[in-house]
Amino acid sequence: MKDTLPYTLTVYLEDTDAGGFVYHANYLKYMERARTMLLYHKGIDHAQLIKDHHHMFVVYTMAIQFLSAAKLGDTLQVFTTLDSITGARATMNQSIVREGKLLVKANVTLAYIDQASPTSRPVRIPKFITRALDVKILEV
Amino acid sequence: MKDTLPYTLTVYLEDTDAGGFVYHANYLKYMERARTMLLYHKGIDHAQLIKDHHHMFVVYTMAIQFLSAAKLGDTLQVFTTLDSITGARATMNQSIVREGKLLVKANVTLAYIDQASPTSRPVRIPKFITRALDVKILEV
Amino acid sequence: MKDTLPYTLTVYLEDTDAGGFVYHANYLKYMERARTMLLYHKGIDHAQLIKDHHHMFVVYTMAIQFLSAAKLGDTLQVFTTLDSITGARATMNQSIVREGKLLVKANVTLAYIDQASPTSRPVRIPKFITRALDVKILEV
Amino acid sequence: MKDTLPYTLTVYLEDTDAGGFVYHANYLKYMERARTMLLYHKGIDHAQLIKDHHHMFVVYTMAIQFLSAAKLGDTLQVFTTLDSITGARATMNQSIVREGKLLVKANVTLAYIDQASPTSRPVRIPKFITRALDVKILEV
Repeated sequence: MKDTLPYTLTVYLEDTDAGGFVYHANYLKYMERARTMLLYHKGIDHAQLIKDHHHMFVVYTMAIQFLSAAKLGDTLQVFTTLDSITGARATMNQSIVREGKLLVKANVTLAYIDQASPTSRPVRIPKFITRALDVKILEV
Repeated sequence: MKDTLPYTLTVYLEDTDAGGFVYHANYLKYMERARTMLLYHKGIDHAQLIKDHHHMFVVYTMAIQFLSAAKLGDTLQVFTTLDSITGARATMNQSIVREGKLLVKANVTLAYIDQASPTSRPVRIPKFITRALDVKILEV
Repeated sequence: MKDTLPYTLTVYLEDTDAGGFVYHANYLKYMERARTMLLYHKGIDHAQLIKDHHHMFVVYTMAIQFLSAAKLGDTLQVFTTLDSITGARATMNQSIVREGKLLVKANVTLAYIDQASPTSRPVRIPKFITRALDVKILEV
Repeated sequence: MKDTLPYTLTVYLEDTDAGGFVYHANYLKYMERARTMLLYHKGIDHAQLIKDHHHMFVVYTMAIQFLSAAKLGDTLQVFTTLDSITGARATMNQSIVREGKLLVKANVTLAYIDQASPTSRPVRIPKFITRALDVKILEV
């Protein structure tokens, strides 16, 4: 999971706010797009996973720093480095960069849940996912 | 359905774009909020309807004019006047107004569908809804 | 402007709603992304235009039909065909397609405005844009 | 700033995603609405501040926990408790609650910036704001 290809995107009008820059909550969308595409490139189709198994990754915690702002028309790259998988949780670092300049960075913990359960019950991340992600599983 | 109370909202940063005004697609959100609250005040809980019956109203067609722009901090009112209900469709006019000035107006047709069906099959709007809305049903 | 390359996009979780499909207002975002990229490929950088000249295209009217719904993970294509440019207005047809199936179609009129003017004053679309778009200008 | 009135909102379709709950990034919008209304009730009109002084609060850091999910039709309350103001930064805790149940909690640091400066230069939070918020200013 090291040295993964970044996810590249363009900032459209929909992403910005009257302050003239990208609205802060929209960076979270960018990071999720990057996670989805990373899974996809590793052979995990998140949409199919939800449809077939009613299992999905959801954001559990996020510590995020908005260091510098992106603006309309910018081309941004989102880098994702998986840290660890433990039971039903996966931890990773994500950064959003414009031409080598770090704009936003975040430490993200995802929970893997049963979307069909009334309580969104956490589910152990299955082996076919951890194998696809080529990550050492931490025993708990 | 005439002379309904308007739905009132405030324009937040999330609603605006770098042009300095409300992003055009967000007016559609305002109009949907207004329709939801109108139904609610007539005794129809749309969220409950989806949960219990897997039936829901979705937008089928919309003809919209963006006449003047709302800006950050504006207080807006959304007026909704139901025209007719025919089978699985309901037609209405909506307008978004700031201090008496018309900003956006739209003619909206909703379809009432079975959300659980693979084809989102249209469903005749049931009597408990047409009665609640106090609208003459057009026979087809 | 005929036979333009479509704009291709992926449906992410951010685009969907609890009905299980793409939230209707988000198709308007897709259409705007497509217009922005079309301009860009014709040599018009909309973000730069706003920055340098405070001129921008905004949506003035839209007649839209939501024929069928896109869902999470879909790959969509947006086709844009410019109809005409008249003074400060440009009219076009846009369609959103999934594997050859038409999901959404719209007739869109844009206004070209001075974003810095208090009234968002319409401005005649300049020749460098009409030339880039290779469109016959209708005299008014 | 203790015991502030909560900001109350309804979850609309626009807020949800295909997982069936509120899309995670949208809780950040709710928290911003609550901050805006809190300022407003203390006599600070954020929109007017931006317009008149080109100064604005932006999110600098956020540590957020998504503990439980809100769903379509929920009525939510956002509680905000200001911690401290130091120079150009204000720190606060925010929580989103449904019928007494904590769904989301966050520690938020805002920066007060000059939106018109090319570098979004931080600006010392002026006395009229700290006075309005009735908060002890930490000397740096």
